[in-house]
Amino acid sequence: MSMIYRRVALIGLGLIASSMAHAMRRAGLAGEIVGTARTPATRAIAREDGLCDRVTDTAAEAVIGADLVVLCVPVGAMGALAAEIAPHLAPGATVTDVGSVKRSVIDAVAPHLPDSVHFVPAHPLAGTEHSGPRSGFAELFDNRWCLLVPVPGTDASATARLRALWEGMGSNVDEMDADHHDLVLAVTSHAPHLIAYTMVGVADDLRRVTDSEVIKYSAAGFRDFTRIAASDPTMWRDVFLNNREATLEILGRFTEELFALQRAIRTGDGDHLHAYFTRTRAIRRGIIEAGQDTDAPDFGRGTR
Amino acid sequence: MSMIYRRVALIGLGLIASSMAHAMRRAGLAGEIVGTARTPATRAIAREDGLCDRVTDTAAEAVIGADLVVLCVPVGAMGALAAEIAPHLAPGATVTDVGSVKRSVIDAVAPHLPDSVHFVPAHPLAGTEHSGPRSGFAELFDNRWCLLVPVPGTDASATARLRALWEGMGSNVDEMDADHHDLVLAVTSHAPHLIAYTMVGVADDLRRVTDSEVIKYSAAGFRDFTRIAASDPTMWRDVFLNNREATLEILGRFTEELFALQRAIRTGDGDHLHAYFTRTRAIRRGIIEAGQDTDAPDFGRGTR
Ligand SMILES: NC(=O)c1ccc[n+]([C@@H]2O[C@H](COP(=O)([O-])OP(=O)(O)OC[C@H]3O[C@@H](n4cnc5c(N)ncnc54)[C@H](OP(=O)(O)O)[C@@H]3O)[C@@H](O)[C@H]2O)c1
Ligand SMILES: NC(=O)c1ccc[n+]([C@@H]2O[C@H](COP(=O)([O-])OP(=O)(O)OC[C@H]3O[C@@H](n4cnc5c(N)ncnc54)[C@H](OP(=O)(O)O)[C@@H]3O)[C@@H](O)[C@H]2O)c1
Repeated sequence: MSMIYRRVALIGLGLIASSMAHAMRRAGLAGEIVGTARTPATRAIAREDGLCDRVTDTAAEAVIGADLVVLCVPVGAMGALAAEIAPHLAPGATVTDVGSVKRSVIDAVAPHLPDSVHFVPAHPLAGTEHSGPRSGFAELFDNRWCLLVPVPGTDASATARLRALWEGMGSNVDEMDADHHDLVLAVTSHAPHLIAYTMVGVADDLRRVTDSEVIKYSAAGFRDFTRIAASDPTMWRDVFLNNREATLEILGRFTEELFALQRAIRTGDGDHLHAYFTRTRAIRRGIIEAGQDTDAPDFGRGTR
Repeated sequence: MSMIYRRVALIGLGLIASSMAHAMRRAGLAGEIVGTARTPATRAIAREDGLCDRVTDTAAEAVIGADLVVLCVPVGAMGALAAEIAPHLAPGATVTDVGSVKRSVIDAVAPHLPDSVHFVPAHPLAGTEHSGPRSGFAELFDNRWCLLVPVPGTDASATARLRALWEGMGSNVDEMDADHHDLVLAVTSHAPHLIAYTMVGVADDLRRVTDSEVIKYSAAGFRDFTRIAASDPTMWRDVFLNNREATLEILGRFTEELFALQRAIRTGDGDHLHAYFTRTRAIRRGIIEAGQDTDAPDFGRGTR
């Protein structure tokens, strides 16, 4: 793979940014990787590990002379960051982000950017429950999807170049409109996360079942919920506050269906339950066939 | 490990029974393993694979001379099965089951059993989303908990012997009262399964997001729900119908909490969300420390 950007500035050095640094290096996609983070602690770790070629103390310094600037901070912090870097951006540079919500990030970032730069919002659909500069790894994006959400007027060649970067980091790339992105992600990610957080909270709250019982006996299904619900609280607070409408719509649908299934349990309507539980298996098969999961039983976790 | 039972009869040859057969053989715990299943197809597979030492056509035949009889069928089928085998049980034999619900199984099975046998209900907290005679493996129970739920008057030595069998198959063993078992499992397993089924159903139902989008973009959280929701519909229908009260109680609590979080999203109460999402991480840490899951990011699934 050959170099796609001469200088990439990563603003924020958490899971996504550090994985990008590793993935860009694996394929030689960037001439120089410059990074910065909000706290001295994170910058010190990045320097110690050699995560980037250069770590600057401020975002303003980091973006100087960069032909790609990637905003890798929580969704709610994007707008202030854009305002901070705007005066320092090189003409012709591309600005992108990796935020999990797109409409609100576009609304918060776009107004600050000068006309001389290209803005191509993006969202890699890959993550783990870990965070911080040491949680990243080069393979995170392999065979996962990255959604590009170009705004009206975005230069096609800027979009194509960013697409090449994500493909070089191992991703499959699709383009999508911001509102549709936010609805799709409400279904595949945001609502499931809120539900998992809620179920883990209920288990923690219940007086008659001890935490130690919940922990010991978690392998029966609950365990997967706790992994999801171990994700970063700040990131997820910002996701829900910034994808409010779509998340609430999906949760409304979810509650409706849950009530119908509760009623079936209460009235003993086994046929309704059986039919519902049968229908949901087709989606699972599709996911395995699409290579987005393996069919190994319980992912070998039963055997550890 | 030495032999614990001379002859073990497995009634029903699905995931749990076939895993038991493999695990008992691994450690030489049974002199002879006899098995049977409802359909000729399953019995033929068991014979072809040599899953048991002997496969009989009926449950009545299978239990003859067995000193341990294990009921490995869906919870709703246990009562009729107990009635069928009761006249054929050897005096002094132990009858146990592996059902995911305990109170209703005890109520359905106990009345049929003669006084000359010991009834020691059990529930191994280990499973996968697969089912049938070829889905089992010897390691399924390793380091997982098995709950014994002895009924009043159960002989202590019969319970101790069954405990030794489960320990020999790799399990940790606890004893618990039936009603408490059903509440604990409603939290750690039954409610999470219903919630996962519901969320997958909603995604499948939504007109504005295609199934192919849901499938492609599932890695962002939804994927774990689909694995849980791929479990056997008959088994789970029976679980919900037979653990109605506890499941509905937990779902009631869940809905309450979910409404509170939805309200926080609607009103923009980020502090409430952040505090809730922070609290749930402690349970995750406990599960990892207890050896019931690994801390590997996303279980390496991000890297496939
Ligand atoms: N994790 C996922 O699964 C995932 C997947 C796809 C997209 N995303 C998106 O990617 C972005 C980054 O997520 P991540 O998982 O990489 O997060 P992370 O590991 O928690 O790292 C966040 C980074 O942002 C910085 N930061 C936090 N708050 C800030 C603020 N108010 N102002 C400036 N910098 C701030 C942090 O700096 P310090 O370390 O100095 O505090 C840290 O370097 C988010 O927008 C998220 O929605 C996440
Ligand atoms: N799967 C789990 O995660 C898990 C974990 C712990 C406990 N359990 C409990 O273990 C038991 C068995 O589950 P499993 O996962 O092993 O199920 P499975 O793989 O679906 O196998 C079920 C077995 O029961 C037989 N069967 C089904 N309906 C029957 C009926 N009405 N009468 C007689 N036999 C019938 C089936 O016979 P055919 O093959 O001939 O149809 C099959 O051999 C259930 O009570 C379940 O609650 C399951």
